[in-house]
Amino acid sequence: MREVFHQSLEDVQFRLVEIADLVTVAIDKATRAFGTSDVALAEEVIADDAQIDEKTVALDEIAIEILARQQPVARDLRIVVTALRVSASLERMGDMAEHIAQLARYRFPERAVPKGLKGTFARMGELDVEVARTLSELLRTQDLAFAEQIRNADDVIDELHVSVFEKVLGDNWKGEATATVDATLASRYHERFADHAVSVAKKVVYLATGDWSREPEALVKP
Amino acid sequence: MREVFHQSLEDVQFRLVEIADLVTVAIDKATRAFGTSDVALAEEVIADDAQIDEKTVALDEIAIEILARQQPVARDLRIVVTALRVSASLERMGDMAEHIAQLARYRFPERAVPKGLKGTFARMGELDVEVARTLSELLRTQDLAFAEQIRNADDVIDELHVSVFEKVLGDNWKGEATATVDATLASRYHERFADHAVSVAKKVVYLATGDWSREPEALVKP
Repeated sequence: MREVFHQSLEDVQFRLVEIADLVTVAIDKATRAFGTSDVALAEEVIADDAQIDEKTVALDEIAIEILARQQPVARDLRIVVTALRVSASLERMGDMAEHIAQLARYRFPERAVPKGLKGTFARMGELDVEVARTLSELLRTQDLAFAEQIRNADDVIDELHVSVFEKVLGDNWKGEATATVDATLASRYHERFADHAVSVAKKVVYLATGDWSREPEALVKP
Repeated sequence: MREVFHQSLEDVQFRLVEIADLVTVAIDKATRAFGTSDVALAEEVIADDAQIDEKTVALDEIAIEILARQQPVARDLRIVVTALRVSASLERMGDMAEHIAQLARYRFPERAVPKGLKGTFARMGELDVEVARTLSELLRTQDLAFAEQIRNADDVIDELHVSVFEKVLGDNWKGEATATVDATLASRYHERFADHAVSVAKKVVYLATGDWSREPEALVKP
């Protein structure tokens, strides 16, 4: 039974990593589509999101099946419940990538990236891709150093998010309303993407440390 | 065992309704704070969100406890897993109410509601409150007519969300960047709030109909 359980868990882990890899591809393509107004690439991201959704649903079914058949308790139970939550976060990360791609498509053939913010969004996009890739590594290896890396990248993304608003609300902002709306939404999507990754990272840390009661910050940053 | 399980489920249901009621209060206060630039009321919403978060965590622990001790299978298992997901959605709805309140606070003593959109946001706010109240009723009674009501209200909210962008991106929009940013974010938060409610409603419908494979739309709207 124990053996079967471990095989099931490995399957769940394998599938989570697989979804995280798809999310990494999605955010990489989405940020490139957004940065270069590549509408074909944007369409790809939008079409491919269905695959992430399907794989998430399949994973959830497997997790529920494990709960029903193997009735895990204690830490094993936590692992399966966490997998369900991680899957929900990955699905939302895919949605954020899709939203960024949609912004690129809406504005085509015009530029989606508002003038004066090209560098900022390029950096946010790079960091989001890095976050997704690191999350995949974290799920694959359970090495908590990756959780720390995700948190650090998220801090930088948060700063960039604030800087977008400072720019847009500053006296020198000459952008039209379209540019203001796009900057606001794009920045929010990039920031939320990383937030979800941080949320997953926290859950992995909880599991590894076995302490669910303490503040996540206290665990990741001593 | 069956009896104990039913008592546990009733406790979970009671707690879900309780959280939905808190979310209803939060969105009601948040929309009033946003509409009237009432910073004290906004502060209340922001402070009270911690209570929603705590109650969500407590509920999740109880649900995991039920999984561990009573090891439900089949539909009973689905109910408990669904409770975990509903709790996550309610927690996010609380966050959206908090975000709306934060917009009111940021702009104080100026008006948070952008000129020309007062009526639209008042309507969106009313609908969000209605959605939250209906969701609470749905969780309390399991009467699927409430799910239908939530979907209908969400459709109207989506239309209002689109109308905000039409307004802001139209030729007659004279709003400053601040107004454009606020309109964009506020509209997004109102729309997401209702989206989460729809997502909960779908899950309740799934459970009631017992069919997890079909499209939710096909179940709610024949």
